[in-house]
Amino acid sequence: MEIVGRDDKELLGIGRDDASARRLDDGIYVFNVDSLTESSDLLPGMSLRDFGRKAVIFNYSDLAAKGAEPLFFMASLTMERWRSVSDFEEIVRGIEEGANEYGTHLVGGDLGSGNELNLTGLAVGKVTHRLVSRSGSKPGDLLYVTGSFGLTWLAFKHLLEGMELPKRLAKRALNSVYRPVARIKEGIVISKYASSCIDSSDGLYRSLRELSRASNNGFMVNKLPLDEDVLKFVEKKGINPIEPAFYGGEEFHLIFTVEREIAADMEKELRDEGVSPVLIGEVIKERKILYKGEELPSGGWSHFS
Amino acid sequence: MEIVGRDDKELLGIGRDDASARRLDDGIYVFNVDSLTESSDLLPGMSLRDFGRKAVIFNYSDLAAKGAEPLFFMASLTMERWRSVSDFEEIVRGIEEGANEYGTHLVGGDLGSGNELNLTGLAVGKVTHRLVSRSGSKPGDLLYVTGSFGLTWLAFKHLLEGMELPKRLAKRALNSVYRPVARIKEGIVISKYASSCIDSSDGLYRSLRELSRASNNGFMVNKLPLDEDVLKFVEKKGINPIEPAFYGGEEFHLIFTVEREIAADMEKELRDEGVSPVLIGEVIKERKILYKGEELPSGGWSHFS
Repeated sequence: MEIVGRDDKELLGIGRDDASARRLDDGIYVFNVDSLTESSDLLPGMSLRDFGRKAVIFNYSDLAAKGAEPLFFMASLTMERWRSVSDFEEIVRGIEEGANEYGTHLVGGDLGSGNELNLTGLAVGKVTHRLVSRSGSKPGDLLYVTGSFGLTWLAFKHLLEGMELPKRLAKRALNSVYRPVARIKEGIVISKYASSCIDSSDGLYRSLRELSRASNNGFMVNKLPLDEDVLKFVEKKGINPIEPAFYGGEEFHLIFTVEREIAADMEKELRDEGVSPVLIGEVIKERKILYKGEELPSGGWSHFS
Repeated sequence: MEIVGRDDKELLGIGRDDASARRLDDGIYVFNVDSLTESSDLLPGMSLRDFGRKAVIFNYSDLAAKGAEPLFFMASLTMERWRSVSDFEEIVRGIEEGANEYGTHLVGGDLGSGNELNLTGLAVGKVTHRLVSRSGSKPGDLLYVTGSFGLTWLAFKHLLEGMELPKRLAKRALNSVYRPVARIKEGIVISKYASSCIDSSDGLYRSLRELSRASNNGFMVNKLPLDEDVLKFVEKKGINPIEPAFYGGEEFHLIFTVEREIAADMEKELRDEGVSPVLIGEVIKERKILYKGEELPSGGWSHFS
């Protein structure tokens, strides 16, 4: 893994990755900032508490992809002047809730006013074993994800485009976008083995494209990591299952590559932690994202799509 | 100086201060987040480059007040969808410019979309000598500021309320809000001596009130630290000079208290660095902000005033 910074303390930084990793004294620390805005991220029906909590997940998920354990969270909150103190308290309660789920606290922040609700989180984490970046994979490495995809895609279709869903599926889908989780425990195990890693905040396709850019190679995906209920639903509806599998977003799964020789050890250690990694393909030399031999179209969920 | 955190690593945190100070391995690090929004902070006539630069100053000034030296800067930028790539580049150029002025870099960040321009900065600094907080002053300590006040108050009056200014004064006033500076060098010297410190981002009066709350005492101010040109101008206009001295904001001066016994040493060391600290009063037991014996009225510049 080649990680060259602008100075001898910088391990990962701008242009190379979304998070910044720095050596401070004897440890390697990862810093991540991510903003949520009302127009892009406060989904219909979402509580301010869940909005606050999700800001933590967004940031901690990026730490997870680097193999870092969260140490603390800070927040800068911009609110419209008409908002009440209880709105503020709900958001802070959600932030505290998210931070506490990972054994951490909200340790400081800033409050200002503006024309739109904006919550920027800062997560600071420490690398416990090994810093992992987006680059470093080699052709032949195996491609894994930490779980199944599709629920968030359904939730966005339901909330933003009015797609009707069966009650039970709607509940699971909404929960996936209102109450996501960050794969910290998984990230720490994965960091011992992975040649590259990213989280799926921008969806499987776009995340694979980022990995592909960073390592200058590509992927052959052979298996759709699709949630079973989602698969049944889209098959009934005549929707191509590639859509919910590749073009969702905010699943906050980890997508990672591992050298073949150590993949079994990694699988075993993850299973011992109660996690079932899903082998979905492998790294190829060609800089393309293929599914069963065919190149996937561009697109996918993005703020700037 | 009593600094008790929620865990043994937390030295300053939420509810006690705006920045968070943490022990990481052997060093003490200060983390600060601050947001600028278009509606509150992009002043009329201000370039996007200066807007980007000012985000660095806001954050580095908070580090200065703690006696920390900046290590690096990160940013989370929310832009409206109609903005161009060159808008983005201008902001980033300004951030880089500000960071470089203090020997640092922009090392990472996040870009998203929203309904209002929002730039949240994260500054990370390291305490070189001694961590200073807002609390710790004792009655009898001397009260200092790092320079004169008034120009930013004039600039806000000029830009936001149309107050006419002589050309030369207008230029100085505008420069004070478009191109502020953070007192890092000063803060490091001050940290060796100060019993408490804050920056004047919210104006002298409100900053003194914060110090007063944090240390549970008050201040008797005997001298107005007013810029000479501003003093002449407001006297001619019949404006009470208390206004521009106490109720401006974003001067980014340091306001600090020092025990009498070591004040001369501090003054000498600051002068050796080319800085002239201004003695403006002292700490009193009563929790009030007095100017020449009279209590100052509440108010002052604030986002939520």
